[in-house]
Amino acid sequence: MSHQPVADRVATVKPVEYDQATGRVREIFDDIMATKKIDFVPNMWKTLANYPPLLDETWQRLKRIMGPGRLDPLTKEMIALAVSATNGCAYCVNSHTAAVKKLGLDDEALGELLSVVALFNSTNALAEAYQIRPDVLPPQ
Amino acid sequence: MSHQPVADRVATVKPVEYDQATGRVREIFDDIMATKKIDFVPNMWKTLANYPPLLDETWQRLKRIMGPGRLDPLTKEMIALAVSATNGCAYCVNSHTAAVKKLGLDDEALGELLSVVALFNSTNALAEAYQIRPDVLPPQ
Amino acid sequence: MSHQPVADRVATVKPVEYDQATGRVREIFDDIMATKKIDFVPNMWKTLANYPPLLDETWQRLKRIMGPGRLDPLTKEMIALAVSATNGCAYCVNSHTAAVKKLGLDDEALGELLSVVALFNSTNALAEAYQIRPDVLPPQ
Amino acid sequence: MSHQPVADRVATVKPVEYDQATGRVREIFDDIMATKKIDFVPNMWKTLANYPPLLDETWQRLKRIMGPGRLDPLTKEMIALAVSATNGCAYCVNSHTAAVKKLGLDDEALGELLSVVALFNSTNALAEAYQIRPDVLPPQ
Amino acid sequence: MSHQPVADRVATVKPVEYDQATGRVREIFDDIMATKKIDFVPNMWKTLANYPPLLDETWQRLKRIMGPGRLDPLTKEMIALAVSATNGCAYCVNSHTAAVKKLGLDDEALGELLSVVALFNSTNALAEAYQIRPDVLPPQ
Amino acid sequence: MSHQPVADRVATVKPVEYDQATGRVREIFDDIMATKKIDFVPNMWKTLANYPPLLDETWQRLKRIMGPGRLDPLTKEMIALAVSATNGCAYCVNSHTAAVKKLGLDDEALGELLSVVALFNSTNALAEAYQIRPDVLPPQ
Repeated sequence: MSHQPVADRVATVKPVEYDQATGRVREIFDDIMATKKIDFVPNMWKTLANYPPLLDETWQRLKRIMGPGRLDPLTKEMIALAVSATNGCAYCVNSHTAAVKKLGLDDEALGELLSVVALFNSTNALAEAYQIRPDVLPPQ
Repeated sequence: MSHQPVADRVATVKPVEYDQATGRVREIFDDIMATKKIDFVPNMWKTLANYPPLLDETWQRLKRIMGPGRLDPLTKEMIALAVSATNGCAYCVNSHTAAVKKLGLDDEALGELLSVVALFNSTNALAEAYQIRPDVLPPQ
Repeated sequence: MSHQPVADRVATVKPVEYDQATGRVREIFDDIMATKKIDFVPNMWKTLANYPPLLDETWQRLKRIMGPGRLDPLTKEMIALAVSATNGCAYCVNSHTAAVKKLGLDDEALGELLSVVALFNSTNALAEAYQIRPDVLPPQ
Repeated sequence: MSHQPVADRVATVKPVEYDQATGRVREIFDDIMATKKIDFVPNMWKTLANYPPLLDETWQRLKRIMGPGRLDPLTKEMIALAVSATNGCAYCVNSHTAAVKKLGLDDEALGELLSVVALFNSTNALAEAYQIRPDVLPPQ
Repeated sequence: MSHQPVADRVATVKPVEYDQATGRVREIFDDIMATKKIDFVPNMWKTLANYPPLLDETWQRLKRIMGPGRLDPLTKEMIALAVSATNGCAYCVNSHTAAVKKLGLDDEALGELLSVVALFNSTNALAEAYQIRPDVLPPQ
Repeated sequence: MSHQPVADRVATVKPVEYDQATGRVREIFDDIMATKKIDFVPNMWKTLANYPPLLDETWQRLKRIMGPGRLDPLTKEMIALAVSATNGCAYCVNSHTAAVKKLGLDDEALGELLSVVALFNSTNALAEAYQIRPDVLPPQ
């Protein structure tokens, strides 16, 4: 028996669809699709478009930080996935898993990445549980 | 006036010092120092030694996961730092910052890494705040 | 193609429906609907009714804290939404978003509120990531 | 060289000392010491006394929930410690570790407890990281 | 009107079904069903099987920690539920709620347990909100 | 006996002092002190100055979001404090508590605010612990 994947939640505001978007919002939507080389506007951006200043600042910030720098794009997306898994953010885990796969991470390397994430969520809990004192306090 | 860095917390159990350690605990302490190429036992391991099975499993697991694999050691330590910063674990942030620096990450690249961590803690909050629906549900 | 919104999760215990409620639980259900000026019992309260002492204390506490005081009702519901978004609690985000809208917050002001929530989840991560020392320690 | 334990933080409001307490606050302070069989007022309660309604409701609630019921006192304090370690709350970890020790938990059993806490912080991260679907959806 | 429970999310990788499992993965699946006395492989394990080393280490660790020790099985599962509720992990809350019920916890005792979890999430927030100083710093 | 407040942690990078700051960093430091009407540079900004792009974007973003809008400055700082207390961020709690006090919130109103924060951290845990289904799914 096949069963259809279902939407697991609905946004608390109505997303702005591409066809409804005008002006600055339309420009940002176009920039998102061109920059990410995709042919649809992800729900995150359609939702933030309800408050254009938030759409604008979030997109400009993400574009700048995820752009060329010292760390490569795959490393940055793996960091994004590690943060999202730690926070338990469903939208973000879905989105960044798709991104790391698109950048070439296969299921084995994803498994290794998530082993690291799981390990340190565990040791973080232990360090807090025993209130362990830092080893070396950096100079100040 | 100079002021000394101070311990910012004390453990809830008494750490086992190297000189007190015997048998399996001593072996693990030696293995930790040899593997990490350091000449002291970090507080995490001295604390876990209060319950040797926890020391043993945590060290074996960390040694295996942080050992050779598909992801390089610096990437794994950056993931560890991203997780620890997201959880707000003081001991862990100190420890993994020391590790990434030892592996060659300078303050500029550290700043870029933490920009990524800050960015996605922000978008995670937005995705939750608007209850944004995943874009693409993977096949199942 | 239209697709129906679907329940995104089901409770781990069977909610107590209004018609099944008797005695103290029925009284609380009536008080909830009268106080909130709504004509249904929200799922939170139907679920807590499985353990009446928890229903009772949670409702009395919420009624008292959310009642008249120094802070106005909209401010309190915005605080509730900020906490719920930060924790990533789906039920709570839905519930408090409905509440702030009912109290007059429009989508623009909601966007501004969530910008603030996103900003400080970001700076919180940075403060932890760099283990920044408090500026001014209050007298003690 | 001996080094003194130091206060690891200071409260953002001035604690109310026992000698300064009057009326309802004094009564609650006395009840806390009598109920917990201790001869000092813990900092939590001295701090909450800055806003007596919060002191009152928190103490009454804690006294009722931690009082006689289906679960024994040690189990309840272990739950409290598990929650506090997961949240990384320093004050709370210290306080509940002291409580479980007073109720007879030795360092070995504490180690076993914290192994359980660490394990499930790890599997929680994995379940979120892979967005694992619940196995069995309860009837509704 | 009856409405069907629906899957509330889908995994980001394809679960390995029992019939597809071979070698070490098949052995672990058999051990999971035998140890837990269930006749299906939970989604957690089918998902982790995408990266066998993670399946292997997670299962061996869970089996050892949840096996005979100083704390009884119900206490350990209650700790697991407290951690999972605090983290807001949907899969984990479902799974550990099923486990505590199977071990005999009825809805009343579950309500008492969750009252404790709710209480300390509240006091944790207060301790952080006021930055309360630990009462007694343990010897070091 | 008086005892001195002590630094409760030290940053993992060396803060940039005002006298060392040049160019864009000096300009931002001056803008921070002028905008906030304070005569020192808070540790957050001295630390971020280690990576000037992060200092720049964080300050510009904070200045814009915390500037004139639909919500008043005190409301925004209360939201900031609610987020910081929920995340357990020590630096941030100290900083935003100072800010709300400067904007006129007295200890009683602060107590009421923190009662709200504590209440909803409690109900968030309950909603997750019982996996409560949203009441009303918004149109999409």
